[in-house]
Amino acid sequence: MIEAPYILFLGDAADPLAAKVAQGIKDWRPDFAKAQFRLPGCNADMGLPDMTMEEAAAAGIKTVVIGVANRGGHIADTWITALEAALRAGLDIASGLHNLLSDEGALVAAAQMHGRSLHDVRIPTVAYPIASGKKRRGKRVLAVGTDCSVGKMYTALAMEREMHARGLKATFRATGQTGILITGGGVPLDAVIADFMAGAVEYLTPDNEPDHWDIIEGQGSLFHASYSGVTMALIHGGQPDALILAHEPTRKHMRGLPDFPLPGLEQLRDVALTMARVVNPACYVAGVSVNTAKLPEPEAEAYLSELEAKLGLPCVDPYRQGAGRLVEALQ
Amino acid sequence: MIEAPYILFLGDAADPLAAKVAQGIKDWRPDFAKAQFRLPGCNADMGLPDMTMEEAAAAGIKTVVIGVANRGGHIADTWITALEAALRAGLDIASGLHNLLSDEGALVAAAQMHGRSLHDVRIPTVAYPIASGKKRRGKRVLAVGTDCSVGKMYTALAMEREMHARGLKATFRATGQTGILITGGGVPLDAVIADFMAGAVEYLTPDNEPDHWDIIEGQGSLFHASYSGVTMALIHGGQPDALILAHEPTRKHMRGLPDFPLPGLEQLRDVALTMARVVNPACYVAGVSVNTAKLPEPEAEAYLSELEAKLGLPCVDPYRQGAGRLVEALQ
Repeated sequence: MIEAPYILFLGDAADPLAAKVAQGIKDWRPDFAKAQFRLPGCNADMGLPDMTMEEAAAAGIKTVVIGVANRGGHIADTWITALEAALRAGLDIASGLHNLLSDEGALVAAAQMHGRSLHDVRIPTVAYPIASGKKRRGKRVLAVGTDCSVGKMYTALAMEREMHARGLKATFRATGQTGILITGGGVPLDAVIADFMAGAVEYLTPDNEPDHWDIIEGQGSLFHASYSGVTMALIHGGQPDALILAHEPTRKHMRGLPDFPLPGLEQLRDVALTMARVVNPACYVAGVSVNTAKLPEPEAEAYLSELEAKLGLPCVDPYRQGAGRLVEALQ
Repeated sequence: MIEAPYILFLGDAADPLAAKVAQGIKDWRPDFAKAQFRLPGCNADMGLPDMTMEEAAAAGIKTVVIGVANRGGHIADTWITALEAALRAGLDIASGLHNLLSDEGALVAAAQMHGRSLHDVRIPTVAYPIASGKKRRGKRVLAVGTDCSVGKMYTALAMEREMHARGLKATFRATGQTGILITGGGVPLDAVIADFMAGAVEYLTPDNEPDHWDIIEGQGSLFHASYSGVTMALIHGGQPDALILAHEPTRKHMRGLPDFPLPGLEQLRDVALTMARVVNPACYVAGVSVNTAKLPEPEAEAYLSELEAKLGLPCVDPYRQGAGRLVEALQ
């Protein structure tokens, strides 16, 4: 687990989009996001107090979270000085970037000298078990997508927030780097060794109170040729009681695969439900989460109501409409 | 690639079953299996010439293959002396055991000193790409099972042999440790990092001549809660033109999962075909390979003909009947 609260490292972000990890933390865990650190030329701003690393430590902040991705996902040389200062000041560092904190000699030496931790959340640190398939107590819901990057993480976080607002017991369970940085823990499923994927998901979603919901972050798609194995392991390791279908209606082809059309939502429903019922015969589809960001409001509304009539399920854009109806659809 | 021919290391095998890797090499690549090496107390015998490591090297043998698994899958201390002698004599060593040759200091030192290679086939040595989903030339067939360990590797090797006997172009593509040791190369798919599984299968089955068949070794089962993600990646990375369904009719529950019944063959057919057609719309089920080893001959025959009538597909036990009808069913 990454210790909160955080100072969000925005570095020399080229634009606000480059700081989307920081934005995610700010949006979904505002209590964690206490300050920001920017280098000259930074074009992102979370509206948080700018602090030096020393000020952050004095304010009780525990961890610098790298909230920015520069081109290529690298830890820039220009960042090293600031990050060394953070370790010296007594802060840990957490990063989801491709190149690792633990490969940066200067940071490793400084962390060792000052007794601090470097969290590379892209790398599993647990020896996950092989999945046992055993039924666990508590409830689980998983979002499965027609494609990658259609809003599965957003949907899960919005459902968690809504459930907390209603006084329900719910925990978002992160399975990707951004989700882990936002919530401080989870399983970087795409980096787990094949044999242990489903076991890692079981580990992430253990026995819980009967009325508690784990809201498991989805990954990939059963219909995505590159990543479907990861999605399959999420379904069989997660043993979901409920599925949410996630879709982006303007997507022309599967992400990164120009020759592959998206499946229909009925096709996704049928295949995902068939596979989920292998491990949980009572699994049902609760609703559909549609990312309508690219549609004007009237078109989005028309699309959602047509879809709802066709599928007989609540069809919701949680960004525009909130996740209330998806939460209500959980039995 | 592991250099052939081999001397099969049987060590102190407790019984013939402990030497099943050696038996597989002897059965499927007899040209590779030139000699055997046994320690005192060995209860396995491949019927090959017993040689010292020096004799093996003098006979043109290139590699010692660890053909035995002792309890726990470990490299026994009693083996080290013989294996050091092998390296000294100029042989490489290949092993699929859980504990690695490369973790045995004495072997690493001897390999370095004598310029030899240690092949731990359980560990990937290639940085596999992320799957591109691009269509490749040539044909591919994949066996998918109702469960793990129902005879998928045997089926694939029997089909390869039958196709070669008929003068057809075919290559068995190993995806597990035993298959890799038998054929000298492949991808240890269960040890590949999640994101790269499907890409590893693409790498294993590249463009080929239009009338060439890759016969891809199956792994796990879409219906096995622990390993279904690996199977999914095989289907989407392999882009099979044809599927063979594999089944063991006396199995009471999924291997290692006492609470999970096996799916029906119709259910496997429908789900596997649906998933395969995501990447290859022309994919078809060619036939069914049934491991009837636990049925007496008349029962086995009755089972196969009933199944054939029910499914309308050639249903064959390749061990009892040969793989001819499965090969003929490839279009």
